[in-house]
Amino acid sequence: MQLTDYIRTIPDFPKPGISYKDITPLLINHKACEFAVSELVKGLKGQHIDKVVGIESRGFLFGMLLAQTLGIGFVPIRKPKKLPAKTLSQAYDLEYGSDTIEIHKDAIQKGERLLLHDDLLATGGTAAAACQLLEKLGGEIVQVNFIIELDFLEGRKHLPKAKVNSLIHY
Amino acid sequence: MQLTDYIRTIPDFPKPGISYKDITPLLINHKACEFAVSELVKGLKGQHIDKVVGIESRGFLFGMLLAQTLGIGFVPIRKPKKLPAKTLSQAYDLEYGSDTIEIHKDAIQKGERLLLHDDLLATGGTAAAACQLLEKLGGEIVQVNFIIELDFLEGRKHLPKAKVNSLIHY
Repeated sequence: MQLTDYIRTIPDFPKPGISYKDITPLLINHKACEFAVSELVKGLKGQHIDKVVGIESRGFLFGMLLAQTLGIGFVPIRKPKKLPAKTLSQAYDLEYGSDTIEIHKDAIQKGERLLLHDDLLATGGTAAAACQLLEKLGGEIVQVNFIIELDFLEGRKHLPKAKVNSLIHY
Repeated sequence: MQLTDYIRTIPDFPKPGISYKDITPLLINHKACEFAVSELVKGLKGQHIDKVVGIESRGFLFGMLLAQTLGIGFVPIRKPKKLPAKTLSQAYDLEYGSDTIEIHKDAIQKGERLLLHDDLLATGGTAAAACQLLEKLGGEIVQVNFIIELDFLEGRKHLPKAKVNSLIHY
């Protein structure tokens, strides 16, 4: 199965000059989703992992499937003011301005081994901020995985300490 | 298994006087998630369903698990300007102001039998708008299901034509 068959490129979205990689054709095909999950967990064989952490909102999609497949819990990282209990926040730079993500302080215990997931690795700002949150809570990041990585944006450079695994490279 | 054991009530969130029902203790327990999914699909036995539709962003969590469990595709309904291809939009009223949700026009084929999922049924505005989108595309809504329903807000009233199934009632 070629996962790229299930990714659609939409020109000039969200703005002129950007080729958006749309995963909705993948989501609509459950066999392709199953295959994607099996490929994502392949690289984790023999490793103990305590929790999957997924980044809002597209990281929730395969994040929950990964957690159920591995038989472990799921922790959401969310946009500001969405998580109701005590949170830890991390700001990160965007092209123009900045953004913030949050995690529940009680979601990770010190020393827990974590799989961080998002659907897309672009410039790496969000994933790097997520890694900072997990490290501040004492978590150990076993791997950061993505469905798609936009190699030309060199997002990996912002995740120097993490083992990065992406299924599709553009 | 009592699913209510995995729901945490946070007082005065997001504003004073509101008791927020937090599903993160459920997400962190994979056995409880598995149980929740099995309970959600129980009421669908013997019914043919073509696709699961989940509402951004917490509806993505169990929406994808439901789709994989049923062996069918998943369609996201998203906040405005998030879906890259041609979309259909539906506005709905909030307590103050209004909001809009969108779906890809090519995500649903006429006559398809659909399961709509979100984590929480409160006033029902979002779910009712989602039903309108699906009906405009010619879909048939077999069931709308939720993890939690806040009965006192009477959200069901806004889903008069739908079969509503919620696992937990407050």
